[in-house]
Amino acid sequence: MASQGRLYGIGIGPGDTQLLTLKSVEVLNSVDVIFTPRSAPKRNSIARKIIEPALKGKAQIIELTFPMTKDKGELESHWSTAAAEVAGILREGKNAAFVTLGDPFFYSTYIYLYNKLKEEYPEADIITLPGISSAFASASAAGVPIAIGDEKLAIIPLPRDTAAIRPYLEMFDTVIILKVGEKLRGLIDVLTELGLQDNAVLVQKVSQKGSERIITGLSGLSEAELDEVGYLSTVMVKKNM
Amino acid sequence: MASQGRLYGIGIGPGDTQLLTLKSVEVLNSVDVIFTPRSAPKRNSIARKIIEPALKGKAQIIELTFPMTKDKGELESHWSTAAAEVAGILREGKNAAFVTLGDPFFYSTYIYLYNKLKEEYPEADIITLPGISSAFASASAAGVPIAIGDEKLAIIPLPRDTAAIRPYLEMFDTVIILKVGEKLRGLIDVLTELGLQDNAVLVQKVSQKGSERIITGLSGLSEAELDEVGYLSTVMVKKNM
Repeated sequence: MASQGRLYGIGIGPGDTQLLTLKSVEVLNSVDVIFTPRSAPKRNSIARKIIEPALKGKAQIIELTFPMTKDKGELESHWSTAAAEVAGILREGKNAAFVTLGDPFFYSTYIYLYNKLKEEYPEADIITLPGISSAFASASAAGVPIAIGDEKLAIIPLPRDTAAIRPYLEMFDTVIILKVGEKLRGLIDVLTELGLQDNAVLVQKVSQKGSERIITGLSGLSEAELDEVGYLSTVMVKKNM
Repeated sequence: MASQGRLYGIGIGPGDTQLLTLKSVEVLNSVDVIFTPRSAPKRNSIARKIIEPALKGKAQIIELTFPMTKDKGELESHWSTAAAEVAGILREGKNAAFVTLGDPFFYSTYIYLYNKLKEEYPEADIITLPGISSAFASASAAGVPIAIGDEKLAIIPLPRDTAAIRPYLEMFDTVIILKVGEKLRGLIDVLTELGLQDNAVLVQKVSQKGSERIITGLSGLSEAELDEVGYLSTVMVKKNM
């Protein structure tokens, strides 16, 4: 019987091929199969586009569909199917990589697959390789240090009720807010109440050449900008800025 | 007059050369000068050891001393000297890199240099490149996902009064605790009070080959371990583990 293959969960960073680590590139060029996630069967995989310039090997690329749904039953069924597909490849003795934007253990689809594999195929050999998170890439792009000394950092997906973010803004030196989207207006209202609207920097589409946009201070945004710039944005609020 | 050079602040990750990004390696092999920090004139630069295997270029390496002191005056004077040295190189039209462990904007010496340059040499052209933080590398090494969905993350250097960490442990799904050191016993006391001692994973010397150590659950440590394992350790506490 062939020995089992190994799965590498690989964080490929926020969007620039050059932000892959040496280790990730080495593994991507050594495995037999690369799994890339996409959100619908007809949509291109963003992750695939990011890694392609770094590929020299001849790994087979298999796209796995992870729908953008909140229906738990539908998601569970998709993860089970994906986990079975991955486990099947490993059982053939092949090594595989699953690529995911940012860091694999940080708000990533990979975590669902990983948990499913642990649960249903506990014998699977899995190694996870860290990647540059968009939160960190955004700070570097904006030229705003995240934290130093005894400063405290909170990283929080913006709650639906934006006011719920208030205690975190009060308690922490730095708050990085993810999943801003269309709730940007609500976030600015809370920041304004706390006098922090100009202690914020918004980074949109970080590391995406030609599309990256950095806005320091959120009090001067036009109505059109308020509608648009929340998409794929991270907001970093820093008291001592 | 020669045009000014550019400074790249480069995060080189937690300890493994293979965790450098492609971009960082490219820049390190293109600049004229690489500044590496060390904590005393006679101590080796850890950062230098990490980057050396990736260097093909012939950059001059200059070690800058940043003493491990809390004396503000002494630190200020060291940063001023370092900033002047860096600014002098840029003024000669040379490009330079300053390398730093982990991510450059995350609890790093680079931030002091960066702030000093911004203050005293505002004309300096500085680009910061993100790196893999030890917090993220620790999670990958331990196989413990950091956060997903609407989970919230706090990253906090352990306060001298360890009990002060209690509200953060209560409010957050995941807390990553840095700078544990000799306060590990105090931290375990707080975790035990909250019933979280087995929801913690300690990662020591992450990414350092042969030295990395992962301890899941903190209730079974021996007295000898309690004295030792806090050093260069990150503790990740996860309610839903």
